[in-house]
Amino acid sequence: MAIEKKLFRDGPYADLFCQGVRVGDTLYMAGQVGTDETGAAPDDLVGQMKCAYAHVETVLAEFGATMDNVVDETWFVTDIDDTMAKVGDLFAARGEIYGKKPEVAQTLVQVVALVDPSFKIEIKCVAVL
Amino acid sequence: MAIEKKLFRDGPYADLFCQGVRVGDTLYMAGQVGTDETGAAPDDLVGQMKCAYAHVETVLAEFGATMDNVVDETWFVTDIDDTMAKVGDLFAARGEIYGKKPEVAQTLVQVVALVDPSFKIEIKCVAVL
Amino acid sequence: MAIEKKLFRDGPYADLFCQGVRVGDTLYMAGQVGTDETGAAPDDLVGQMKCAYAHVETVLAEFGATMDNVVDETWFVTDIDDTMAKVGDLFAARGEIYGKKPEVAQTLVQVVALVDPSFKIEIKCVAVL
Repeated sequence: MAIEKKLFRDGPYADLFCQGVRVGDTLYMAGQVGTDETGAAPDDLVGQMKCAYAHVETVLAEFGATMDNVVDETWFVTDIDDTMAKVGDLFAARGEIYGKKPEVAQTLVQVVALVDPSFKIEIKCVAVL
Repeated sequence: MAIEKKLFRDGPYADLFCQGVRVGDTLYMAGQVGTDETGAAPDDLVGQMKCAYAHVETVLAEFGATMDNVVDETWFVTDIDDTMAKVGDLFAARGEIYGKKPEVAQTLVQVVALVDPSFKIEIKCVAVL
Repeated sequence: MAIEKKLFRDGPYADLFCQGVRVGDTLYMAGQVGTDETGAAPDDLVGQMKCAYAHVETVLAEFGATMDNVVDETWFVTDIDDTMAKVGDLFAARGEIYGKKPEVAQTLVQVVALVDPSFKIEIKCVAVL
């Protein structure tokens, strides 16, 4: 029962999982964290969010897609109080990234931790192409 | 690469995300919390669960769907001990909402917090139409 | 708006949810925990991970599928430090289960707890057939 997958592998864990797997019209994406070009994460949540979406856009671009293709996102944050305190800044910056009122479903929960203690947010998206 | 999305926006965050996004036959839904018609959440978990599913049904109805269309649900709860202590009541009430043995996959985890400290449960569903 | 679901019910909660729900080409799977044939979970994380994937394979097999069909997985773990300390062993064992470089997207977060205090990991997969 072979299915045709299109894969995008990248980053230090490229042998372990894919950043994106497309099957049919659906693109399943790995959760993206807020690392910058040096591999470190900015101290602030808004900065990390921007970096995470930059990774999302990189994955999308590998499949010829853009933020318009995202249909669902789950935010895993490590500090909901900080998130809600900055919700205006966060969603303003996110709105600029989407370039319109985001046409996506969203779920937002606080987890205990992400894979590195410096990470404050991980964004898992599903896109349709 | 334009895709055709059907959107349902509602509630105080309607500019920020959609309660439901349909593409093709799949309906991605935002996580639903247990607020009642006043916008507040009942004190008890079973009451919040019922409210959350009422929101799920509202979103489904916007797309001409019912609980029969739900295929996958993830429960994010803030107190697994309370959840398991009330598991009989919870699943009895949920069974009434589904009106049959639920034909859905389920995942249940305890997170640290949801977007408001009063929220005890958030239910994220995927439906197929 | 009837949709055709193929269901796999199993285990003590078979009346409450399905281990797998197939609609069209997509198989939505319940989160799988690391119980062994006795219903108990091994003490160690690597052992639990292997048991969880064994359940994943059981669900897949019910639909005529294998690990090759998995496109997305979310790991909910209860101790990220323990997870990262054992990441080499975990991913080596997982690589053997997949039998190749896993062609899946992955998300990994630490939650507070799973449905039983003995559970250290829950793996939620989506497969395409």
